[in-house]
Amino acid sequence: MNNAPPPEGRSLASAVLGGDRLALARLLTQIENDAPAGMLVLGELFPHTGKAHLVGVTGAPGTGKSSLVNQLALHYRRPPDGKAPQRVAILAVDPSSPFTGGAILGDRVRMRDLAGDPGVFIRSMAARGSLGGLAPATAGLAQVFDAAGFDLILIETVGAGQAEVDIARLAHTTLVVEAPGLGDDIQAIKAGILEIADILVVNKADRPGVDNTERALRNMLQLAHPAPRIFQHHGRLEVAAAPAAATVEESLWETPVLRSVAIEGAGVAEVAEAIARHRLHLEQTGGWERRERARLQAELEARLRQELLERWRESTPSTQYDEILERLVARRISPGQAVSELIDGG
Amino acid sequence: MNNAPPPEGRSLASAVLGGDRLALARLLTQIENDAPAGMLVLGELFPHTGKAHLVGVTGAPGTGKSSLVNQLALHYRRPPDGKAPQRVAILAVDPSSPFTGGAILGDRVRMRDLAGDPGVFIRSMAARGSLGGLAPATAGLAQVFDAAGFDLILIETVGAGQAEVDIARLAHTTLVVEAPGLGDDIQAIKAGILEIADILVVNKADRPGVDNTERALRNMLQLAHPAPRIFQHHGRLEVAAAPAAATVEESLWETPVLRSVAIEGAGVAEVAEAIARHRLHLEQTGGWERRERARLQAELEARLRQELLERWRESTPSTQYDEILERLVARRISPGQAVSELIDGG
Repeated sequence: MNNAPPPEGRSLASAVLGGDRLALARLLTQIENDAPAGMLVLGELFPHTGKAHLVGVTGAPGTGKSSLVNQLALHYRRPPDGKAPQRVAILAVDPSSPFTGGAILGDRVRMRDLAGDPGVFIRSMAARGSLGGLAPATAGLAQVFDAAGFDLILIETVGAGQAEVDIARLAHTTLVVEAPGLGDDIQAIKAGILEIADILVVNKADRPGVDNTERALRNMLQLAHPAPRIFQHHGRLEVAAAPAAATVEESLWETPVLRSVAIEGAGVAEVAEAIARHRLHLEQTGGWERRERARLQAELEARLRQELLERWRESTPSTQYDEILERLVARRISPGQAVSELIDGG
Repeated sequence: MNNAPPPEGRSLASAVLGGDRLALARLLTQIENDAPAGMLVLGELFPHTGKAHLVGVTGAPGTGKSSLVNQLALHYRRPPDGKAPQRVAILAVDPSSPFTGGAILGDRVRMRDLAGDPGVFIRSMAARGSLGGLAPATAGLAQVFDAAGFDLILIETVGAGQAEVDIARLAHTTLVVEAPGLGDDIQAIKAGILEIADILVVNKADRPGVDNTERALRNMLQLAHPAPRIFQHHGRLEVAAAPAAATVEESLWETPVLRSVAIEGAGVAEVAEAIARHRLHLEQTGGWERRERARLQAELEARLRQELLERWRESTPSTQYDEILERLVARRISPGQAVSELIDGG
C-alpha cells in the first residue's frame, strides 16, 4: 500500500463512486478550482470513466437551449416506452458576463421539474476568463460525472464562439439549436456551426419563419455534405468519391434537422431518439473510439506542454527570462532567437 | 560573417525593406505556409517592427466590415486635411468555409478603388483549420507589413468566435462593427464583444432600427464600464473607486459609438479620427507598450511551449509515446500518470 493516495482523497473517490451527492458536489468544486487534492481524486476515478455519452448542446442566446436540455433530462428520467430511466447530469457552462441572465432563468425552470430526483444532477459553472470559451475544467467535471455513473452528460453552452469548437472536441454528439428569426444572414454565420453539428434542432418551431430557417439549414447541409453523386461511366453506374478528408463515420452520418417546441415538450422524444441513433452510429463506425482517442490525446498533449514548460521554468532563473523578454520587447532579438537563448542559454 | 543567413534569405529581407512588392508577396506566402526560409527572414525583419498601428476590424457577416475597411484605406491614402498620405496594408482573414462569399465581393470592391496604388497592399488569407479562429500565421504577416513600412495594418476578420478574441490580443485598436437589425437579442450576444471593442461602429446607419442598435450598445457599455460615481461624503465631493481590474489605460478610455454608411463614405473620417485618438490614448497611458509587451510575451511563451515539446519528442521514442497513449485510451492510467511516465520514464 505504498504510494496510496491520502485517506481523505481515497474516501472522497469511494464516496463519489458510491453515489454520495454531497461528495460529488464537493469534488466538482475542487476540480473547478483546480485544487491539487481534487486532481488527485480525478486520477483515481479515471479508470471508471469512458461509459457516459457526452452530449454537447450549443446555440445562440434566445434559441431555448436550456428548455431543451431540461426537457431532454425529463425524457431520460421518464422514458415513454417502458425502458429503464437513465441517470442524467447537466453541466451548464455560462459566460461569466453580467449581461446574460439566461442561466438563472434556466436553473429556475429546472428546479421545479427535476428537483429531488436522485437520478439528475445539475451543475452550473462560469466560463471564467475566456471570451465564450469552455472553461478548462469542463473536461474534468465531465470525467467526474462519468465515473459517478451518469449515463448521459448534457453539456450546455451559449453558442458564442470558441465554446462551440471546444464542445465539439469534448462531446461525442453535438446538438446545435437554432430558432426562427434570429438574424437575417444565417448562411454566413452558420458556416462554422455546420462543421460541428451532429444534430440540428430548430426549436421554437411554432414561431413564424420556421420553414425558412429549416430550409436554409438543409440547403447549407447540402452544400457542406453533398450526397454521393451517381453517374454513368461506360454504361455502368458509378459513385463519385466522397469528399477528401471525411472519415467513414462522418460520411455515413446524415445530419438530421429536427423541429421542437421544447417549452411544451414537443419534438423532444425525436431529439432523444436522434441522440441515441448517433451513439449507435459512432459505435458501429468506430467513431466512438476515434473521438475518445482524439480527446484523450489532446488532453495528454496539452498537459505535456504545460508540464514541460513548468519544469523548464523551475530550472531557469526568472532573471534570465526577464532579461531576454526585455531584449525582445526592445526588438534587439527576434522571438526565435529569444527561444533559442532561453533553452540553450544563448 | 559566420552564422549569416543564406543569401537568398538575406536578399529577400533587403528587398522587402526596400519596398519590393513582389518580394513582399513572396515572403507573405512563405510565412503563411510556415516555410522555414520565411521564418528565417521574419527573424531578420523583426528589429524593423514595432512602428505600425495594428487595427483589428471585426463584426458579424452582413455588417459591411469590408466596405468600412476599404473606405478607411481610401481615407488614409487621401487625407482630407492636407496631411501626408499613410501607407496601408489590409489583411483579410476569411473563414475557410465555402459558404461565405464575402471575401470575393470585398476584394472586387477594393480592386476598383485601390488597385495600382503603391501605398496599399491587400492580402487575403484563409483561416485554415480553425473554426473562425485567426490563422496562426496572422501575427507573422502583420510583422512583415510592419517591417515593410506600412503605417496602418487593417486586419479584418469575420466576427464569429475565437477570431475576435485573437484579434483583440493581436491589435492595438479593435473596431467592432454592428449594423441595425441583425438579431433580436443583441444584449446577450454582445457580452464578449464589448470586452474587446475599443471603438464601436454602427454601420449601415441609414437603415431602420439604427437608433435602437445604438441605444442598446450604449446601454451595454454603461453596464460594462460604469462611469465613475461622484457622491458627497461629509460635505465633500468624492469619486467612487474604478472597477477592480481596470488599468489606467482602460478606465480612461470611453469607447465611442460611431455611425457610418461606409458604402457612401459617410462617417469614415470620424472612424479614422477615433482610431488616431485611440493610438494617442495608448501612447499617453502606457497602453501601447503594455499591449506590445503582452503580445510579444504571449508569442514567446507559445513558441517556448512548442519548442520544448518538439525537443522532448526528439528525445523520446515514438513507440514509448504510442504505448502510453494506448494505456491511457484503455483507462489503465490517468492523464496525469501518463505525463509523469512520459517525462520521467515511469
